[in-house]
Amino acid sequence: MNTYIEQNKDRFLNELFDFLRIPSVSADSKFQPDMLRAAEYIQEKLLAAGLDKAEICPTAGHPIVYAEKMVDASLPTILIYGHYDVQPADPYELWDSPPFEPTIKVTKNHPDGAIFARGSCDDKGQIYMHVKAIEMMLAQGGLPCNVKIMFEGEEEVGSENLGIFVKENKEKLKADLILISDTSIIANDIPSVETGLRGLTYMEVAVTGPNRDLHSGVYGGAVANPVNVLCQMIASMHDADGKITIKGFYDKVAELSQAERDDLEAAPFDLEEYKKDLEIAEVSGEKGYTTRERASIRPTLDVNGIWGGYIGEGSKTVLPSKAFAKISMRLVPDQDWEEIAELFEAHFKAIAPPTVKVSVARHHGGQPYVTPTDSAGYKAAMLAMEEAFGKKPVPTRGGGSIPIVALFEQELGLKSILFGFGLDSDALHSPNEHYGLFNFFKGIETIPLFFKHYAELMK
Amino acid sequence: MNTYIEQNKDRFLNELFDFLRIPSVSADSKFQPDMLRAAEYIQEKLLAAGLDKAEICPTAGHPIVYAEKMVDASLPTILIYGHYDVQPADPYELWDSPPFEPTIKVTKNHPDGAIFARGSCDDKGQIYMHVKAIEMMLAQGGLPCNVKIMFEGEEEVGSENLGIFVKENKEKLKADLILISDTSIIANDIPSVETGLRGLTYMEVAVTGPNRDLHSGVYGGAVANPVNVLCQMIASMHDADGKITIKGFYDKVAELSQAERDDLEAAPFDLEEYKKDLEIAEVSGEKGYTTRERASIRPTLDVNGIWGGYIGEGSKTVLPSKAFAKISMRLVPDQDWEEIAELFEAHFKAIAPPTVKVSVARHHGGQPYVTPTDSAGYKAAMLAMEEAFGKKPVPTRGGGSIPIVALFEQELGLKSILFGFGLDSDALHSPNEHYGLFNFFKGIETIPLFFKHYAELMK
Repeated sequence: MNTYIEQNKDRFLNELFDFLRIPSVSADSKFQPDMLRAAEYIQEKLLAAGLDKAEICPTAGHPIVYAEKMVDASLPTILIYGHYDVQPADPYELWDSPPFEPTIKVTKNHPDGAIFARGSCDDKGQIYMHVKAIEMMLAQGGLPCNVKIMFEGEEEVGSENLGIFVKENKEKLKADLILISDTSIIANDIPSVETGLRGLTYMEVAVTGPNRDLHSGVYGGAVANPVNVLCQMIASMHDADGKITIKGFYDKVAELSQAERDDLEAAPFDLEEYKKDLEIAEVSGEKGYTTRERASIRPTLDVNGIWGGYIGEGSKTVLPSKAFAKISMRLVPDQDWEEIAELFEAHFKAIAPPTVKVSVARHHGGQPYVTPTDSAGYKAAMLAMEEAFGKKPVPTRGGGSIPIVALFEQELGLKSILFGFGLDSDALHSPNEHYGLFNFFKGIETIPLFFKHYAELMK
Repeated sequence: MNTYIEQNKDRFLNELFDFLRIPSVSADSKFQPDMLRAAEYIQEKLLAAGLDKAEICPTAGHPIVYAEKMVDASLPTILIYGHYDVQPADPYELWDSPPFEPTIKVTKNHPDGAIFARGSCDDKGQIYMHVKAIEMMLAQGGLPCNVKIMFEGEEEVGSENLGIFVKENKEKLKADLILISDTSIIANDIPSVETGLRGLTYMEVAVTGPNRDLHSGVYGGAVANPVNVLCQMIASMHDADGKITIKGFYDKVAELSQAERDDLEAAPFDLEEYKKDLEIAEVSGEKGYTTRERASIRPTLDVNGIWGGYIGEGSKTVLPSKAFAKISMRLVPDQDWEEIAELFEAHFKAIAPPTVKVSVARHHGGQPYVTPTDSAGYKAAMLAMEEAFGKKPVPTRGGGSIPIVALFEQELGLKSILFGFGLDSDALHSPNEHYGLFNFFKGIETIPLFFKHYAELMK
């Protein structure tokens, strides 16, 4: 580890821990004051790191933190994007330590210890690497590039207001590329850089049968049960081959060439390890594709939540009036998230039997994205990883979504570099989310190398 | 209305209201103290009504209230059964007035007003009719039959401890028949007496996929989603004709003769009114049967509750680790509830894909039941209804279940007479459960007529 990091190790960690203690959950309005506290905390640390200015920009939703350090107009400018909001921590009872009280524990993949806390990896731990990397560069001879920073508070709920902010601040956000640490590497000894992301369409549906909950003895068998109906509708959305049955769903899916598929398969992957880690006997998914392809280059449809009827202790013989589900679809190039939302809504209404009424609402969405591997930014990322890890990184395709990335390109004309340091096994969005100490410090060490290589390649 | 009822109307109602204010929910352990309060309240009122003794009999669960008045060993003995426990009141937000604060409101079917409260009809209001009817008989020249009373606190959760109590107290419970007011009549101007009940098998299932909640982007498409899987499993339990696909499910179903079916269809029924009342465009159910048959002489499978994944505000892109459902089946002669429970469990495990683990648990169950229409008890019920309502009652088959009835016959060798006064539209088990003032007082008036006619027929 480099000396500056070594000397400031404990302070870096303590600062991150204080940041993680703030429950910045964007989806649930009761955490609104904490969202502001988190924004103010990161603003203060950005100024302390030596940036010229750091401001809190209000939006219709949660605020955006913007900061910059302009060294020299002749140097390239890197716009760092990340988010300080986190997923809800529920179900709390499944956490081994409190989600907002960071705790260091050793794991199989993190023998040197990992920080257990909601947001430790996604994304507060990863944006804090950038704050500390900039502090280090400024403390050790300055920045080789100009830097702008934009940390939002609504990534986990669709980045709607960031989209507006970007459209209204094109001048302020002028840069040469966008650098994002919100993805993962294959393993701590297998560095990788992602070449793409999936898009997302997130819907919520309601099925209404009778106008009130009914006695299942008096009416059961004669009146459609909205829970049974919802189950039938959801079941019908996949066919026997694991294909999604929504009409037109695959029309715009870009099929990869066998060569591209072979490249992706070249990256190390152990299916048995994968199943063992999840304690599942079998994987499942779309026929004709490998596990990694199913989780990256193919679209999906998953129920993220379902509820209806009596879910309390014991039993209640009720024929429920209503049933609900949150359903999201991961998208791949060149699917359009709004078009898919329309196809989903039309399909869901079309398959609803006349015995029920249905309603469909949109939560949020985002477009899929692909990074050009021949760009200076992507090359700089590969070089920085190689220098820091001492071995050539592997190109991968991510399965997650960062909805705003496509909008950045559309509005700012900028490509994004996916420069994340987490592991897929870090339990993102799950109880016991964690982030390796190795990964946190390795990130702080690697980011300045990206700045260095990018500046050189842009000369 | 007869004069004694007229003179004591307000007191009868006030006593019932106090009874209904006690939230005697048997399914939820947090109401345990209220269960005891309800038992003590009814014990006190039974003694006040003039019964010789009324005792609270402890069980492994909620207590049983037993009382008796032995007039003359040569007279027939009627054992009155009912329950003082009620269904959970959730969802509370759908009640127009608090479930445990009785309120009188006028409804379409109850122009003279109805008592809105959980348990007003099922079954606290109906057992209280018996307490007041006995008070009235004793006040007006005595009982024409000996009477024994057994009110339990676990009918809504399977009557398990009552079963034990009955087996252990056969001598004490010696009688000539059992009288039960826990069912309904067709309408306030169409009296009816039920000739049978459906049985019940109530199960709970859990489906487990990965060992933790997963990020739906990182794993979605490659790992089986337990909610999607549960939906597929539930959907597969009905075929296109609305038949239940569990192997052997229909093997013991007694098919009715066309003549029997015609008799049942003879009772007045307005399908358009039925749909209008529930605000549904179409009914649905097993092909080849009418709405009334589907709800009475045919078995069913309904999901009473389902839950899994994120069901809070907003969105969470999670691939859940677990999904759950409460599933109950209504049974008809000669299905056996324990055999059906075994068939369900075997079927559910058989259809589970290798990508998930499943577990199946039983809540409770009960056997279907048929009343012999040529018995003195049934004839007395028909005569009492005819005298009180001024018109011939209609024989009907009920869709609900009183699991203990079959056990009474098996253990005590006694037939049960289903002598209920509610309406199917009284929202039993639902928000805004209510019981007509007309029905409450008509019941108090009719019960002594049953005693009279039964005593005469037994001479």
